[in-house]
Formats: sequence, structure tokens, C-alpha cells
Amino acid sequence: MSEVSWIAVDWGTTQLRVWALSAGGEVLQHAASARGMGSLAVDQFEGALLELIDGWLDAERVTEVVACGMVGARQGWREAPYAEVPCAPQAMARMIRPEVSDARMRVSIIPGLCQRTPADVLRGEETQISGLLSEWPDYHGLVCLPGTHSKWAEVRDGQVIGFQTFMTGELFALLSGQSVLRHGMRGDQPFDLPAFEVGLRAASERPLLGALFGLRAESLLEGLAPAAAWARLSGLLIGQELAGLPERWQGLSVCVIGDGQAAERYRHALATLNISAQTLGAEQVTLAGLAAAHQHIRGGF
Amino acid sequence: MSEVSWIAVDWGTTQLRVWALSAGGEVLQHAASARGMGSLAVDQFEGALLELIDGWLDAERVTEVVACGMVGARQGWREAPYAEVPCAPQAMARMIRPEVSDARMRVSIIPGLCQRTPADVLRGEETQISGLLSEWPDYHGLVCLPGTHSKWAEVRDGQVIGFQTFMTGELFALLSGQSVLRHGMRGDQPFDLPAFEVGLRAASERPLLGALFGLRAESLLEGLAPAAAWARLSGLLIGQELAGLPERWQGLSVCVIGDGQAAERYRHALATLNISAQTLGAEQVTLAGLAAAHQHIRGGF
Repeated sequence: MSEVSWIAVDWGTTQLRVWALSAGGEVLQHAASARGMGSLAVDQFEGALLELIDGWLDAERVTEVVACGMVGARQGWREAPYAEVPCAPQAMARMIRPEVSDARMRVSIIPGLCQRTPADVLRGEETQISGLLSEWPDYHGLVCLPGTHSKWAEVRDGQVIGFQTFMTGELFALLSGQSVLRHGMRGDQPFDLPAFEVGLRAASERPLLGALFGLRAESLLEGLAPAAAWARLSGLLIGQELAGLPERWQGLSVCVIGDGQAAERYRHALATLNISAQTLGAEQVTLAGLAAAHQHIRGGF
Repeated sequence: MSEVSWIAVDWGTTQLRVWALSAGGEVLQHAASARGMGSLAVDQFEGALLELIDGWLDAERVTEVVACGMVGARQGWREAPYAEVPCAPQAMARMIRPEVSDARMRVSIIPGLCQRTPADVLRGEETQISGLLSEWPDYHGLVCLPGTHSKWAEVRDGQVIGFQTFMTGELFALLSGQSVLRHGMRGDQPFDLPAFEVGLRAASERPLLGALFGLRAESLLEGLAPAAAWARLSGLLIGQELAGLPERWQGLSVCVIGDGQAAERYRHALATLNISAQTLGAEQVTLAGLAAAHQHIRGGF
């Protein structure tokens, strides 16, 4: 294969994903493991990384490894303190380098972003936003990043102006898997899009804490189908999220990052509110953002 | 001791509580176990009950046992189908009698209530509302029953006009114990009332799904104390509940049922919104409601 020029790393709480890239930016190899930051002690990070990339390293030279995500959290490999918005998504000057014992690599960790009022933080998404700006340098609008904690960021003039985290995905997992609602719902059937839309509409009509138990009551009284209850819950929560976006963001363009089911649901939810959204693939923007950071490092960080 | 006239039973999902009463309504004995409806198969209910009341029964006559709560659910001892509001809290005509093998007792189960639009159900609270009406037959206003699922009911002319369940307590348990927020909160310290009030106010200023992650971010960025984060979360959720009460209920009197910490927090939350509330003890109204049902049974059900 052609020579590995550098290695891109997306290291989240539950997953570690790595890519070997050529000098021309081509993906030569890809690997992943479940050794996320949440399962590692500080002295286990280098080993977890080498487990995946050892064969890509060259004994004759130092390969740059560029990482983003929770690996830079306080409980991660080494803390990369947040940069405060408004600022460019990747705070290159604050990138940090954990010590490594393997001389074949040099690792850089990209810091996350923080916001003082209202208090908020993110790690990993800054790199996806940077990747979006690599594609569209003049982008002005909102970036929607669905996930366990979905993030919405306002981007203008190459900077992140502000952002907002919603615990929508985590709440969905808790409510569908561990609350009393679990008795009346199933997620192993085809997604019930009409029920999702009913949930979306209900989100603006009824307060969330009251609407939730309604799903249980409809199961008991009207035999609401488990797959419909599942989709209704998803619609209720995503609908609440969209209804809770700050007013100053009304009317801005939206780009949803992601290629999976979650992103598809957000796009559908936005469309039902007559908000058209562009889309970029998550892996595509993550790699573009890591490449932007690598360019900077090569330029002499 | 004086003779046991009848036995009152409050049988919830996790707890079984029983009282032996004299003909004059005096509590002669009290007992409880953790053999709630959730842990019992249909053929285990009689045994679980006898475990607590066997010594109170008289071989020479049949003692009336009057029960309310989840014991009458579809997964309970025997289903007592819901009565539909508007109606009197205790649908005496729909009381059901599970078969028992012990000839010393006759068991009656009080049905719960249902509402079609919006769909809602309750079991057990109907008896507490009936108990409130025993104390105050002309009560016109709202009854607030805090709990894992808090219930609000509108009572007028001796009837339950409508009601609304909120999953506030269950959501608090899931978020404080199992979500990412658990890392920044502790509930084993004195309750932080000022932080609770901050949460109450924030509930009306910011959408819930966004405000939740703010607690995590404030822990990371500003060192928000774990006890304060705990109380803030409680305030956020109870504040959302109060903000979500139907508009048609504005201006009605409020009576909070309960003597524990949860009821105290609801009273405090209502007071910060300038809503004064009366209070009745939970055991007091449960027993009064079970006594009302017993009166009816003696009258010839």
C-alpha cells in the first residue's frame, strides 16, 4: 500500500476509531475498538492506541497522530483545556501532546470548546465543525450534531459563536429502557414514522413531563402499539429539543451532521417544521477536521 | 387489645402496608412489607397479605379487608377495571373481590381512575382523594399528590373532574442516578434550598432538555457543588411540572397530600410561585379513604 503519512483518531467515551492516511489525504486503512475513554485508566491510552495502529507506524520516522474527542477530557489521557467561544472551532494553539513511550509517533489532542453563559461544553464536535468549514469556508448558520447528547452550534465568519447541548439521546435511552414506559415500547421493529410525527406535534402542544406518562396510559387504555410508542417518544423528545432552540437562531440555515438513523430523524423533524437542512456525513467531516488540524501541525505547531 | 373490626390495605408496586382498625376507626396495629405488586405472581398475593394480617383474623367470623393501589392492576392480584372521570373518586359499584382460600377474610379492591383525553390513569390516589373529601366534603380545587409519578387532580362537587400525571420523580431518579449528571451530584447532604430555588426559576426561563446538560457543564466549568447540583435538578423538574399545569387550573386552591420531603418541596415550590397550599398527611387520607370504602361495603355492597 502507499505510505502512511499520518493517522487520524476519533476517541470518544465508548469508541476508539482510527484511520491511516496518505500524504494526498486518501484513507489507506481504518480500524476501531470499544476501548473508549470511559473504560481506560490514564496509563492504558497508549496501549489501546498501539493495539490498532502499531502496524501503520514506521521505525525510521515519527508519524503524526491527531486525535479529537473525550480523550482530551479531565478523565482522559491528558486534559486539553477548553477554548472559550466565540473562537475558531479548533484552538490550534491549545493543542496538547501527551507523553508517549513509543518513539515512532507523536500524538496531538485537539481541545474542546466551552461557553460561559449559559454554561456548556463539547469535545469532538469542534473537529466536525472545523471539517464542515473545510468544505464550506463561508458557512453561516447552525450545525446540528445528533448523538447521545445532541449539540447545536452557530457558526459565522469561521467561528463558533455559541452552542447548546441537549440530553435528548440519553433521555430517550433511559426512558425507553429503564422507566415505566419500557413496558409499552419496542425498538426492534421498523421505525413508525407517522407515530414519530404525532410525537413531534404533541411536543409543542403539551409539556414534556406530562406527555411522557400519556404514552403509558395510551398503552393501557387504547393498546398503543409498542413500536408506535417507541417512535412517539422519539418524536416527543426531538420535538422538545427543536422547540427549545434559542429564538435568536430562528431563520438561520441548518446543516445536520450524520449519516445514520438519528440524523435521518432530525432531518425529518426539521422538514415537518418547514426547515430545510443540508447534510454532511459524520465520518467525512471528522476526517476533514482532523486533516485541518494535521495541516496546522505540519505548518509548525 | 380491642377487637379488630376491619383491615385497611394500601398495596403499591413496591410496598404493602396494612392497618387493623377498631369499629370506632382507631388504628390498633400497623404492619408493612416490601412484597409490593411488582414482585408478586398472581398466586402469591393471598400469602403475602396473610403474612402480615394472619394474627388479626378471627376464626369465628369473616373480617372485611379493603385494599387500594396497584394490587388492582392488570398485573396485580385481580384486575379492577378503571372508572372513567368525571366520577366520584371511589367507584364503589366497580369494586372487585379476588377469590381467597382463607375463609376468615373477604377482600375488596378499589378500582383506579382513567381519563380518555388526554389519556391518563391512576391507582391508589383515588382513595387519597376520597379521604380528602371525607375531611372536606365541599372541597373545590386541585389535589397535588407527589410521588414517583406525581398526580394532580381537579375535584369539584365530590367528583374528580380530570387529572394529570407527571413522571417527575422517576425522571429525577434516572437523571440523578444513571445519566451523565450523576458524576456531578450527591443527595446525601442537607438539601440545598437556595439551589432548589435557582432550579425552579430556571425552569421557566430555559427548555428542560437544554437546561439539564447545563448542570454538567457548570460542574466542569465552575465547580458547581454536588449537593447544589442535586437540588437544582430537583427544582428544574418540579418547576417544569408546575409550569406545565393546564391553564384552566389557574387560580384554583391547592391541597398537597403528603408529609415527607417530596411534599415539603412541592409546598416550597408553590410558595415561590405565590400559590398557597393546604396540606393533609398521606397516611391520614389513605386511611380515611379506605374507611369510606369500608362504610360502603358494610352498607351492603
